[in-house]
Amino acid sequence: MTDPARIYTAALIVIGDEILSGRTHDKNIAQIASWLQVQGIRLVEVRVVADIEEQIVGAVNALRPANDYLFTTGGIGPTHDDITVDAVATALGVDVVIHPEARTILERYYADKGGLNEGRLRMARVPAGAELIPNRMSGAPGIRLGNIFLMAGVPHITAGMLDALTGELEGGAPLLAETVGCWVAESEVADLLRTVERAHEACQIGSYPFFREGRVGANFVIRSTDAGDLDSCMHTLCDGLSAAGYDFTPGGI
Amino acid sequence: MTDPARIYTAALIVIGDEILSGRTHDKNIAQIASWLQVQGIRLVEVRVVADIEEQIVGAVNALRPANDYLFTTGGIGPTHDDITVDAVATALGVDVVIHPEARTILERYYADKGGLNEGRLRMARVPAGAELIPNRMSGAPGIRLGNIFLMAGVPHITAGMLDALTGELEGGAPLLAETVGCWVAESEVADLLRTVERAHEACQIGSYPFFREGRVGANFVIRSTDAGDLDSCMHTLCDGLSAAGYDFTPGGI
Repeated sequence: MTDPARIYTAALIVIGDEILSGRTHDKNIAQIASWLQVQGIRLVEVRVVADIEEQIVGAVNALRPANDYLFTTGGIGPTHDDITVDAVATALGVDVVIHPEARTILERYYADKGGLNEGRLRMARVPAGAELIPNRMSGAPGIRLGNIFLMAGVPHITAGMLDALTGELEGGAPLLAETVGCWVAESEVADLLRTVERAHEACQIGSYPFFREGRVGANFVIRSTDAGDLDSCMHTLCDGLSAAGYDFTPGGI
Repeated sequence: MTDPARIYTAALIVIGDEILSGRTHDKNIAQIASWLQVQGIRLVEVRVVADIEEQIVGAVNALRPANDYLFTTGGIGPTHDDITVDAVATALGVDVVIHPEARTILERYYADKGGLNEGRLRMARVPAGAELIPNRMSGAPGIRLGNIFLMAGVPHITAGMLDALTGELEGGAPLLAETVGCWVAESEVADLLRTVERAHEACQIGSYPFFREGRVGANFVIRSTDAGDLDSCMHTLCDGLSAAGYDFTPGGI
């Protein structure tokens, strides 16, 4: 049974030289973070590491025992730089094996595209004991082993894998959020924010400044798993902004 | 003196609940990664952590001794959730002090904006012994302490701070890159990529597949600090693609 008071946590390892070189802008962090929120699971740490086995192993061994779930993105394709399966198997001390169902899926997918070759068969390799995560977008499946989920690096393929996992993972009460935007320098209302947060123990307030149209402003995001306290905190903050003479925009600017 | 054969490394800690919640798409990883490349410094790890002091302290203590440089983004503003300065001071075992020059800068910046208040004065707080990194975009400076650089969370402010640091950091030979794009499933050329990489010890080849206009393709990025071997590797790969009957696009698709 799900315990609504328990906080379920996840970590994410983004595997890829292309992110660390600045060549590719990561989209998986935000995508997986948003998806986890809906599942009632809190993303608490992300590490981006290079395509180097010992670095992946180190991150897996640090993050897996500390969290309910561990996701990885990248490095499960057919080429020589795709080493995530090997690294996770090393971290867990298990062998790498060909998953028969993955092999069948790939044989079918590549039947009219030249058939399986050594590279394509690499995508049927899994750490021993793993299950598959369906991938409707291309042949190669994602991989699930215990609390570890190996996803693709290409964001739209990962989106499909997340879709297949929706509702499958045990989570807690989702973290709710309310936003109010204000054309104010956050430094003018820092005391107000601090005071309001202290008065609402179940809430955290984040302040996210911006500079647009030649003016400074900020969005204040209140987060809580307690809908009642969230509502109360939002009202207190809005009353405080009004009393200080600031207009505000519920929902954010 | 710079040793061109030495590889200089950096790590980055992205501090912010807003990234982990999926609310904000991080832009600082790619921005800092690209800037570091030009400085001859390799970004080898990124960690995204929450606005929780012990998590920031843990990441600082793990990454600072292992790298030539450590950058952080986020958490140096005026509000209660800005705790980066405190966390870095804790990690280093030093006090937090008001930096007189930072105070002067902020007094001047806010002179016609209501003056300093408690929140704004927070932005003059630094770990003892720190220097300032100029920030032309807003009053609050970045902070440099030894090999640690504390930058803003707002990307265009961090851009200005990076600009101020350009050419100031010792680096090695920049990592050069050449890209060739091809309308091919990467799984068809996985063996070729592996063979070519093995023949060019000073080069790494990354394969980055995509799906556009209803077709699959991939960009192959060759990286090396050795311009000669990079050129040779590029020619070998293009010859191999030609021999296998594939058209390719130098520079990438």
